Amino acid sequence: MLQAHMVARVLASRPQLLVSGAAAGWRHLSSAGVRVEKDTMGSLEVPADKYWGAQTQRSLQNFKIGGPRERMPEPVVRAFGVLKRAAAKVNMAQGVLEPKIGNAVVQAATEVAEGKLDDHFPLVIWQTGSGTQSNMNANEVIANRAIEILGGKLGSKMVHPNDHVNKGQSSNDTFPSVMHIAGASEVVGTLLPSLKELHGSLAAKSDEFADIIKIGRTHTQDATPLTLGQEFGGYAQQVAYGIERVERALPALLRLAQGGTAVGTGLNTKKGYDVAVARQVAADTGLPFVTAPNKFEALAAHDSLVEMSGALNTVAVSLMKVANDIRFLGSGPRCGLGELQLPENEPGSSIMPGKVNPTQCEALTMVACQVMGNNTGISVAGSNGHFELNVFKPMMVAALLQSVRLLGDAAASFSRNCVVGIQANRKRIDQLLHESLMLVTALNNKIGYDNAAAAAKKAHKEGTTLKQAAMGLGLLTSEEFDAWVRPETMISPKDG
Amino acid sequence: MLQAHMVARVLASRPQLLVSGAAAGWRHLSSAGVRVEKDTMGSLEVPADKYWGAQTQRSLQNFKIGGPRERMPEPVVRAFGVLKRAAAKVNMAQGVLEPKIGNAVVQAATEVAEGKLDDHFPLVIWQTGSGTQSNMNANEVIANRAIEILGGKLGSKMVHPNDHVNKGQSSNDTFPSVMHIAGASEVVGTLLPSLKELHGSLAAKSDEFADIIKIGRTHTQDATPLTLGQEFGGYAQQVAYGIERVERALPALLRLAQGGTAVGTGLNTKKGYDVAVARQVAADTGLPFVTAPNKFEALAAHDSLVEMSGALNTVAVSLMKVANDIRFLGSGPRCGLGELQLPENEPGSSIMPGKVNPTQCEALTMVACQVMGNNTGISVAGSNGHFELNVFKPMMVAALLQSVRLLGDAAASFSRNCVVGIQANRKRIDQLLHESLMLVTALNNKIGYDNAAAAAKKAHKEGTTLKQAAMGLGLLTSEEFDAWVRPETMISPKDG
Amino acid sequence: MLQAHMVARVLASRPQLLVSGAAAGWRHLSSAGVRVEKDTMGSLEVPADKYWGAQTQRSLQNFKIGGPRERMPEPVVRAFGVLKRAAAKVNMAQGVLEPKIGNAVVQAATEVAEGKLDDHFPLVIWQTGSGTQSNMNANEVIANRAIEILGGKLGSKMVHPNDHVNKGQSSNDTFPSVMHIAGASEVVGTLLPSLKELHGSLAAKSDEFADIIKIGRTHTQDATPLTLGQEFGGYAQQVAYGIERVERALPALLRLAQGGTAVGTGLNTKKGYDVAVARQVAADTGLPFVTAPNKFEALAAHDSLVEMSGALNTVAVSLMKVANDIRFLGSGPRCGLGELQLPENEPGSSIMPGKVNPTQCEALTMVACQVMGNNTGISVAGSNGHFELNVFKPMMVAALLQSVRLLGDAAASFSRNCVVGIQANRKRIDQLLHESLMLVTALNNKIGYDNAAAAAKKAHKEGTTLKQAAMGLGLLTSEEFDAWVRPETMISPKDG
Amino acid sequence: MLQAHMVARVLASRPQLLVSGAAAGWRHLSSAGVRVEKDTMGSLEVPADKYWGAQTQRSLQNFKIGGPRERMPEPVVRAFGVLKRAAAKVNMAQGVLEPKIGNAVVQAATEVAEGKLDDHFPLVIWQTGSGTQSNMNANEVIANRAIEILGGKLGSKMVHPNDHVNKGQSSNDTFPSVMHIAGASEVVGTLLPSLKELHGSLAAKSDEFADIIKIGRTHTQDATPLTLGQEFGGYAQQVAYGIERVERALPALLRLAQGGTAVGTGLNTKKGYDVAVARQVAADTGLPFVTAPNKFEALAAHDSLVEMSGALNTVAVSLMKVANDIRFLGSGPRCGLGELQLPENEPGSSIMPGKVNPTQCEALTMVACQVMGNNTGISVAGSNGHFELNVFKPMMVAALLQSVRLLGDAAASFSRNCVVGIQANRKRIDQLLHESLMLVTALNNKIGYDNAAAAAKKAHKEGTTLKQAAMGLGLLTSEEFDAWVRPETMISPKDG
Repeated sequence: MLQAHMVARVLASRPQLLVSGAAAGWRHLSSAGVRVEKDTMGSLEVPADKYWGAQTQRSLQNFKIGGPRERMPEPVVRAFGVLKRAAAKVNMAQGVLEPKIGNAVVQAATEVAEGKLDDHFPLVIWQTGSGTQSNMNANEVIANRAIEILGGKLGSKMVHPNDHVNKGQSSNDTFPSVMHIAGASEVVGTLLPSLKELHGSLAAKSDEFADIIKIGRTHTQDATPLTLGQEFGGYAQQVAYGIERVERALPALLRLAQGGTAVGTGLNTKKGYDVAVARQVAADTGLPFVTAPNKFEALAAHDSLVEMSGALNTVAVSLMKVANDIRFLGSGPRCGLGELQLPENEPGSSIMPGKVNPTQCEALTMVACQVMGNNTGISVAGSNGHFELNVFKPMMVAALLQSVRLLGDAAASFSRNCVVGIQANRKRIDQLLHESLMLVTALNNKIGYDNAAAAAKKAHKEGTTLKQAAMGLGLLTSEEFDAWVRPETMISPKDG
Repeated sequence: MLQAHMVARVLASRPQLLVSGAAAGWRHLSSAGVRVEKDTMGSLEVPADKYWGAQTQRSLQNFKIGGPRERMPEPVVRAFGVLKRAAAKVNMAQGVLEPKIGNAVVQAATEVAEGKLDDHFPLVIWQTGSGTQSNMNANEVIANRAIEILGGKLGSKMVHPNDHVNKGQSSNDTFPSVMHIAGASEVVGTLLPSLKELHGSLAAKSDEFADIIKIGRTHTQDATPLTLGQEFGGYAQQVAYGIERVERALPALLRLAQGGTAVGTGLNTKKGYDVAVARQVAADTGLPFVTAPNKFEALAAHDSLVEMSGALNTVAVSLMKVANDIRFLGSGPRCGLGELQLPENEPGSSIMPGKVNPTQCEALTMVACQVMGNNTGISVAGSNGHFELNVFKPMMVAALLQSVRLLGDAAASFSRNCVVGIQANRKRIDQLLHESLMLVTALNNKIGYDNAAAAAKKAHKEGTTLKQAAMGLGLLTSEEFDAWVRPETMISPKDG
Repeated sequence: MLQAHMVARVLASRPQLLVSGAAAGWRHLSSAGVRVEKDTMGSLEVPADKYWGAQTQRSLQNFKIGGPRERMPEPVVRAFGVLKRAAAKVNMAQGVLEPKIGNAVVQAATEVAEGKLDDHFPLVIWQTGSGTQSNMNANEVIANRAIEILGGKLGSKMVHPNDHVNKGQSSNDTFPSVMHIAGASEVVGTLLPSLKELHGSLAAKSDEFADIIKIGRTHTQDATPLTLGQEFGGYAQQVAYGIERVERALPALLRLAQGGTAVGTGLNTKKGYDVAVARQVAADTGLPFVTAPNKFEALAAHDSLVEMSGALNTVAVSLMKVANDIRFLGSGPRCGLGELQLPENEPGSSIMPGKVNPTQCEALTMVACQVMGNNTGISVAGSNGHFELNVFKPMMVAALLQSVRLLGDAAASFSRNCVVGIQANRKRIDQLLHESLMLVTALNNKIGYDNAAAAAKKAHKEGTTLKQAAMGLGLLTSEEFDAWVRPETMISPKDG
Repeated sequence: MLQAHMVARVLASRPQLLVSGAAAGWRHLSSAGVRVEKDTMGSLEVPADKYWGAQTQRSLQNFKIGGPRERMPEPVVRAFGVLKRAAAKVNMAQGVLEPKIGNAVVQAATEVAEGKLDDHFPLVIWQTGSGTQSNMNANEVIANRAIEILGGKLGSKMVHPNDHVNKGQSSNDTFPSVMHIAGASEVVGTLLPSLKELHGSLAAKSDEFADIIKIGRTHTQDATPLTLGQEFGGYAQQVAYGIERVERALPALLRLAQGGTAVGTGLNTKKGYDVAVARQVAADTGLPFVTAPNKFEALAAHDSLVEMSGALNTVAVSLMKVANDIRFLGSGPRCGLGELQLPENEPGSSIMPGKVNPTQCEALTMVACQVMGNNTGISVAGSNGHFELNVFKPMMVAALLQSVRLLGDAAASFSRNCVVGIQANRKRIDQLLHESLMLVTALNNKIGYDNAAAAAKKAHKEGTTLKQAAMGLGLLTSEEFDAWVRPETMISPKDG
């Protein structure tokens, strides 16, 4: 055991470590000189080749947390583009934004929506809890890019980040809107198609294996038989329900907070603005977004994300079960259950030659753990809103997007690289089936539970077959056993 | 700091502690002598005045875990009565159980369903993970009580626990069915009415406070105004969505596994048995139970409970937010926010005379923590099913029922003992509203964001009113300020 | 699939349910008439045969949450007895409590400490978050019992709950002290002995199985060999570390908040009071309690409980792994891994005659899930303290005590009813060992990884032995194979 | 409410989404042509300008999960460099690796340790659960780089990834070793210094504020006074204990699995190899690593990471409390508690001019949520080991490293950008102190709890001062009040 004083001694003089410090350089992305930008707190320098302004720069300096790995997820950045474009269009339609500026904003926002300006969004998740700094990052980038389009000077505020780009908006309604746009888009675009693909491959295997009768296992112990198709049918059903669960949680994400502005009242908007923006976002994304009927709830609470995370958690729980079963059924090749043969995708061991492992199951179950963990984190964050605003927004959306993406990608990978290639080891399955003692259950209705138990126990103790034991006890004849104990009649209810 | 060796020394000789050992006597509930019961493993003594048999007794002896506090929840016991009665009726209807025995079983099961035999169910949650021992407890109690009804001798197996009471059943389908019957019944009977009551009281307060304009708070900092009615409207909306969430998770609980028997195939049942049992349970409970379309999923996974727990978790998150707000808005009486006056239900302090505390908020938020914790536990348990059976059933249903009951009871208590009695401190609310600097936001569209910020900063720095500062900067006239900065126009979007 | 409208229809008219309502009668424990008690809010009736007073009665009426199952845990009640007794002794020694009253308090408190007055503590966990009501319950019961001892009239306040029993105390320091006394006592008295017992039985099995060479499994797939003793040695090591983890978290629980009174300053105490009370509690319990060096931390945060819960969580994680391994290694009897034979404690199935299940593993792993869930709940609660007080105290201590008790009881049950009776199936183990292909690893240093892999793949593909395949590839001779591939040389590093 | 059919319709035809797809290009990092590499499964093409080989390439193709954001953390990559270098040195010293090759390996591994080859480690976390593919990535990169150093041809296996670089190793012991090296290094190098910095700034504030008497708050309600220094002293104590908790969990991370090879037996190593590698790693990192006394535990379980995660979870809980307090005490500027002035680091609102928010508190509490979530995920993963190997390794180490880094960075950011700049608003503090009714507690020992309560209630009801109320009730004289109720005597125990 390590002595505490050894540790203490080392800790006293911080060692020269080899790791970390990775972030050292990443905030200085530019060698193109600097430009002066200002906000209500004063002026400061920003990289000349970046569109962002003073508030983005302040955040960069004040939140050195986590490094580039922790940057605000791309779907959030792009959703800002979608939202800012929609707002500008509605502002023009409502006559509060002059078309020249408005159209430049639309063009710049489109570039953000299309991911062309990702490099101009350097902020990390771990900033202000309202996401204000990322909202200002979007406002500043779009404003400067619009200025550029209009032939102006970057930083001139000819197109103003607040007065023009953010017009009729607050971070407090834009960031929740962006959370929902990003979340719903990823759910619909990444997760659901992958879950459906996985459902399809499991259902196909259920069909393929419909005639293979195998021993069942309960408590991990031998039990009565079922078909391998039925077993995979259970997996497919879990995934089918999972898809329904995610779909049922989706409408909550399709409600947009936009139009609530600072505290939910809609201050500084015109009537109808909220509905119009939601309609525009719906049109632009192809998803049926609507305006949230209660903006106070939509800013102050993110129960919608907690709800969706709960659905993802349930899916993770399901997939953990499915993947665990498949790896155990495929265990071996010689000292495990060995009923399934999984695809051999890569060498499995750096030391054991010829070893092949259920690696897709492993990736999927690791993902499930992270999703379950994120659910705890998202729940804690969701419970901590105060008054008119929940200020755990960036964490919540980032964790949700990670869960969505990982579940989707891992489900697709598992389907393609594992499920579709699974083969049944019919010989092994058949051998185990006929060795099992639990076929005795078929005798309950013939000789009673207690007699059946006596036969099974005798066979187990003496290492004989069930038939030998039952006959040895004088409970039935050879013909009766053969007539009564037939696996193929044990896999469904009896006709009346 | 405690020295490790002090602890070690004490630990070396286990001290005579005052606590625990509480369980010492509880398993010996009877002084009425004993009766011999037997099962397939042999004979043993059980208390003469209890209906249970050998398998229950074995479980009592083998699982001394947690003591009486950890007994299987009553709703599970009663649901066994409901289910066993339904099964006996269907067995009689299908002609596989003779009416004399069947009717006695029905009568005995009804007594279990009505809670009359609770004392005969001594087993703890922490037993076999299939709940087999509680199923056998139900089978044994019903069998012996039916024997008694028929004038037979307890333990005679004239009505047999397995062959008659458990006919057409396995623990593996009865216990999941009981989990769903108990869970759905408690959700519908306890939780939803309480949530609706709470929603009603919050909505009523929202109406009552509709005309009270108050300062908003975002990031816990002063923000633009809203009405107190709007604020409570947000809370009511959270609860309304919570009710929908729970209701959306309910159909999954209304699917019954019954008829799957040992591994989901329905071995030892007749066709139609599953549908008939579900229909009978639905008729007897008034809840629309149906037979699960896929019995393999229904035995091997309890994603339905994970889903419902996720809904409860989301409700807990919502209620945590609401209760936190109310305690902070009611903080004081003199050194807090003081906008609300909460009912004074009891002396708050054993040392501070006259102190009154937001105790209902505290009970509710403690409940929320336990529900969030149970959600983690239920999720882990749900992820650990193997092959044809998840063997974390008793833990899952017990934790779910605790969450349901606590949330329901605490929501009702909070509604009755706190929400309905909340009064607004109008004087305090009005005072804070007019001191706030964030009314400046109304000026964005008049003088621009940057000028407005300058005015707010000046007022903050110099401790003056916003009006003084704005006029001091020459940004507007007194008349303009009065016309533009009016809280009553700041609580909704503007007309076109 | 259930139609939503069916559910809605049922929900609209709340059905007559069979379940719940269990709490109906439990608060009316008494038929012995009533007595009038009063507090600073007025008078009310309490059961005449109970010692509690007005504040306890108010809590009963205001917190109808969860019913009798949710009563404050007994160890908390008894710890109140210990603490109140110690405080009275110190108050007498400091000359601020007259001996006549003080000695009566000591006598009454001792009865509480010994569990004789448990029936007089009816309050549930879900009350005020400071535990004030349970503190007042203790004060009231001890005061009235002391009055009785002194021949006075119950309710007369001749011995005053606040001025005498609670002298020099606040709920805000007594309840945290009681949390620590109860927690540490249960850890030392229940959990650690059970973990040590389990460690002992695992270590004994490790010795017993030291010479049994078996196939290893990584990724659930066949791997290189080890002894069964080594495998059990790993389990024993996990438990040994778990004991250390719990012991390392214990000193934090041994710090008592007593003496901090209302907010941590020690208002209304005399210097030295805190140290003296801790010393007295230490003397009375045999555990080395000390006064907390910082009372502000001790009232406002319960990181100590979070720390201990984290240790319990780690133990739960360890035991989940051990129990899972044992059930899989014992799976079968004919269609599983079958390397271990677990004790047959009870019939395993209500439908499958003769089935025996790893039920102790199941109880233990269910407990592990609840402990993991409680850890989440305790963490959320611990994170929610505000200013001078964390008001999630009753929930935190109740969840911690549940985790401690369940882990302790389940570890002992698992040790006694499973581990000590485990037998190795030497025949099966030997058979699997010699079939495995992963013995090929011994050839890495002889013929290189790539050649070894080729041999293993060939054997796998053709269903031959490893030796046949390696010789078939011309990689070695029969003699070389026999000399190089010997399992008994593969279970440790080689001598230099 | 959204109509389900609208959602369904949209979902039926997968929309053209704007988001995601981000990963499209990232796996094609190279335009420099390709090179053919091979492993035991055959040949495939890899980018010509990358050192990795066939197994890395297979993993890239088989695990398209999460994109570049999910790459294996840099500290893991660098720790591989440290470990491979140490192993090569020991192999040379033990005479099983020829110096020419060994020295080239040492040189190449050093480049990995120094982060010079980060671009050659493209694999994601979500791969095989043993981390084998990252181990092979390290082996392949080091082998090819060593070949290059020796003037050979990339892919020639002149230096072999398995036979030379991985000599005496298995993924099953290297990956756990790397987990510990990376984890311990980040804890010591990033987290502990930051926590100590934060402790220092809180302790300094405690000193600075030692003479400021303020009202205490319990249950968020007014309570008896304490000093602001005492309040910050409680925060400092929490962090001090947190540092101890992390340090206590560190020894477990300092145990290295290296030398256990495939299943813990040390197959294919020489005696002493394990000790020598740990010693070399200790020398190279300056941290007191030792060889794990039980290699079976070290491969099959990662309780050490669960333990450390539990310590981080406790720290997160502590910091959540501290940051919440500071944001509430700093709430305002005019409508909150307003006792603290937090540094104004950036404009707080995109719509509310002049608003400043407690953004550092927000970042820190968001981090706390993620750490709490990761703890759940790590615990679930840790509980899922099977037999000789836990295959949730990459997820566990990645989540742990994220928690360590985020907590460290956020603690430092919070200290520097918030704590050190906090100023007390003495005027506001003093005003609140003298308005509070809870100074009445000082009268308990003079006039009794019940009389004191009457005075406080009267003052509260009538809106008067406490003194007026107490005198009005005739309980004391003006002189007595002034002598007895003095906040400066209420902040500590009384002298005897």
